[in-house]
Amino acid sequence: MKQIGVGILGFGTVGAGVADGLLRNRETFAKRLGVDVALRKIADLDIVRDRGVAVPEGVLTTDAMAVIADPEVQIIVELIGGTGVAKQFILEAIAAGKNVVTANKKLLAESGREIFEAAAKAGVDIYFGAAVGGGIPIIRSLREGLAGNEIGSMKGILNGTCNYILTRMIREGAAFDEVLKDAQRLGYAEADPGLDIDGWDTAHKASILASLAYSIPVDPHGIEVKGIRNLSSVDVAYAGKLGYSVKLLAQIDRVGNEVAVGVHPTLVHNRHLLSAVNGVFNAVMVHGDLSDDLMFYGKGAGRAPTASTVVGDIGDIARNLAGGGARYKSAIRYDNEGTLSVMKPGDVTSKFYIRLMVVDQCGALGRFGTIFGNCNVSIEQASSHEFLPGREEAGVIPVVVRTHEAKTSDVEAAIKEIEAAGIVRGTPVVLRLIK
Amino acid sequence: MKQIGVGILGFGTVGAGVADGLLRNRETFAKRLGVDVALRKIADLDIVRDRGVAVPEGVLTTDAMAVIADPEVQIIVELIGGTGVAKQFILEAIAAGKNVVTANKKLLAESGREIFEAAAKAGVDIYFGAAVGGGIPIIRSLREGLAGNEIGSMKGILNGTCNYILTRMIREGAAFDEVLKDAQRLGYAEADPGLDIDGWDTAHKASILASLAYSIPVDPHGIEVKGIRNLSSVDVAYAGKLGYSVKLLAQIDRVGNEVAVGVHPTLVHNRHLLSAVNGVFNAVMVHGDLSDDLMFYGKGAGRAPTASTVVGDIGDIARNLAGGGARYKSAIRYDNEGTLSVMKPGDVTSKFYIRLMVVDQCGALGRFGTIFGNCNVSIEQASSHEFLPGREEAGVIPVVVRTHEAKTSDVEAAIKEIEAAGIVRGTPVVLRLIK
Repeated sequence: MKQIGVGILGFGTVGAGVADGLLRNRETFAKRLGVDVALRKIADLDIVRDRGVAVPEGVLTTDAMAVIADPEVQIIVELIGGTGVAKQFILEAIAAGKNVVTANKKLLAESGREIFEAAAKAGVDIYFGAAVGGGIPIIRSLREGLAGNEIGSMKGILNGTCNYILTRMIREGAAFDEVLKDAQRLGYAEADPGLDIDGWDTAHKASILASLAYSIPVDPHGIEVKGIRNLSSVDVAYAGKLGYSVKLLAQIDRVGNEVAVGVHPTLVHNRHLLSAVNGVFNAVMVHGDLSDDLMFYGKGAGRAPTASTVVGDIGDIARNLAGGGARYKSAIRYDNEGTLSVMKPGDVTSKFYIRLMVVDQCGALGRFGTIFGNCNVSIEQASSHEFLPGREEAGVIPVVVRTHEAKTSDVEAAIKEIEAAGIVRGTPVVLRLIK
Repeated sequence: MKQIGVGILGFGTVGAGVADGLLRNRETFAKRLGVDVALRKIADLDIVRDRGVAVPEGVLTTDAMAVIADPEVQIIVELIGGTGVAKQFILEAIAAGKNVVTANKKLLAESGREIFEAAAKAGVDIYFGAAVGGGIPIIRSLREGLAGNEIGSMKGILNGTCNYILTRMIREGAAFDEVLKDAQRLGYAEADPGLDIDGWDTAHKASILASLAYSIPVDPHGIEVKGIRNLSSVDVAYAGKLGYSVKLLAQIDRVGNEVAVGVHPTLVHNRHLLSAVNGVFNAVMVHGDLSDDLMFYGKGAGRAPTASTVVGDIGDIARNLAGGGARYKSAIRYDNEGTLSVMKPGDVTSKFYIRLMVVDQCGALGRFGTIFGNCNVSIEQASSHEFLPGREEAGVIPVVVRTHEAKTSDVEAAIKEIEAAGIVRGTPVVLRLIK
């Protein structure tokens, strides 16, 4: 049986999981693939600390470049993360004719073009299944199983930390700060949680999904990204009363020759399957012209689930190599650049949930209705709500407006005008809404 | 660009969908695959009726054998269904060195060994993604993305007709017969609905899933298969009061060196994501040792979703052929025959829901408790229920027992003894239960 050598760069949580998976399931894997996948090298700066994996002697090294150069290594698995040396090592590996597996969503979202084009030019594979959805085979399914579909839309819960926090806010009526602290204590959130809770991790993944589905570059900095840091438990509670759960949602929609991409805290109706995705789990709902609605659900992070996908990617490359020449186009290509473009954030349409603390004076309720109408924002329902216990404020009434489909820029204009008119206290809360 | 020719046998609903998909998305498909997939021939006995697809001249024929023999056709797509000519044509195609795509679950469940072994011997591909889950890429994910995982269990809602009927029974409190008639009127159920409602369609799919995950033959006639034909709206209502939804569930569990496979109406707790899978949708929850829980959700039947998967399979073969020699092992192999075996139905364990119409006499309630205990069936909870309006019966009390994990044969023995003891009226209702 043909042997394929693997070198892992980065012996952290996921690296240890991949090493464990390759060593433990080697036989099963060989049976299913017809190729023997051998773990040859693992490079890390720290090769002393115990990672709970019994690595054969001679495998550990501190020299990443030597792993890349090793003639017995055909596949380089980059699990260092970040956009520094990780990028350098990936480009070196490609230049050395090695195939690459990475889970580095930030790097691919920010430097995808450079990396994918280098891989295509060198004729090597680059697989990145674990960059989106961790253990969920969403990248594979989009690339292969749905290859005959035109993708109409994707909606994703792509960050387990946020979904864990939101699930607890919904279930316990707790405040964001309180749950975040608890999540940090339990290891579900980083000490520096910004990348997760401000939506950027989700945005990186949305960028990769949209690029893959539509073959265009999608700059995460060119789309609207809102996180959950400022989400109030008041809105979580009001959403619940209206029959919705708040989720941090990546939304990708094809509209004519444009692709709308954005990340927002979103009210998801409780009849929608995405509302039932709780805790650290992730899910992506995909609408294909042939497949109709599909949903993929699973653990979006963590050692074993991420390792599972990385190992699956290694298997794909091993299969390609053993096949003697057949190469599946694993790199994202930008074939539709020029014909399809990313929609300007202001042009993106959605239904909205808007909470206004309306100054309790005669006529105020009528006036904001007029302003919305003048700005082309059509109101589906407006209703005043009771204060939550302990959150009473004198002189205002909480009013929740749900709009029909409206343009983001129109909603922004309406909110600006309402604030200027002095009929609300503070800044209105604007969230998205799907049914 | 290399061209690969496709011949479709069977121009029914799905056949027309596949033809449409190949013709409509030919360009997208070529871009993503790097191969031009050309629809060369479609064989059907009736080539006159309009299927709503603009087929180029010369493509339609009544001669299936000529399509198989056509040197310009490398891929035969069998969409005739059934176990008669479909089997013959598939074996002829394999013998002629053609690659095969089929959605024929019954044929694969019943004659899988013969077909898979013929394909392996001839060195051709046989893909069957649409045989389980229609538009859901579950077969592909199991075979490829999860190749590095040991599968611990699978739970599937695999029949859209049953799930549609059950969803309406739950929501409307309606009787089975009534909803079935309506489903037939609306086209969601066949005129002869036996294959669906008696659980056999689900059993065929469970057999294929288990064979693929564990590399052993699984005879659908060697497992316990129960459908929903006799499901009472009383039990659907009681389940609802206990916080459960009734689903027709295929369950596959690895237990040591055995694989437990069965199909049963099952109470699924409302916290479980499978309970939120409603209407004609299907879903499969898979537990892998690395991936943890994954769920795949989508349309399990229908022209376009099924066609989507068939087209994806065609793409895989086209890719293999264009690669010039690389062949992924698409056929199921029985490598674990002898080391792993299918568990005897009586040995399969589960939690159970049991409804007994207990004769209202002193001591009866205590006696069935004793009988369960003597048969090793441990009761988690027993409670008497109110009659549903209009369903009152004199002289009995409806009692619902929920058991801890128990052996099927022990439960059967207990029920037999309870019936013999004359402390219940009629036959107790026994359903499975998962939390």
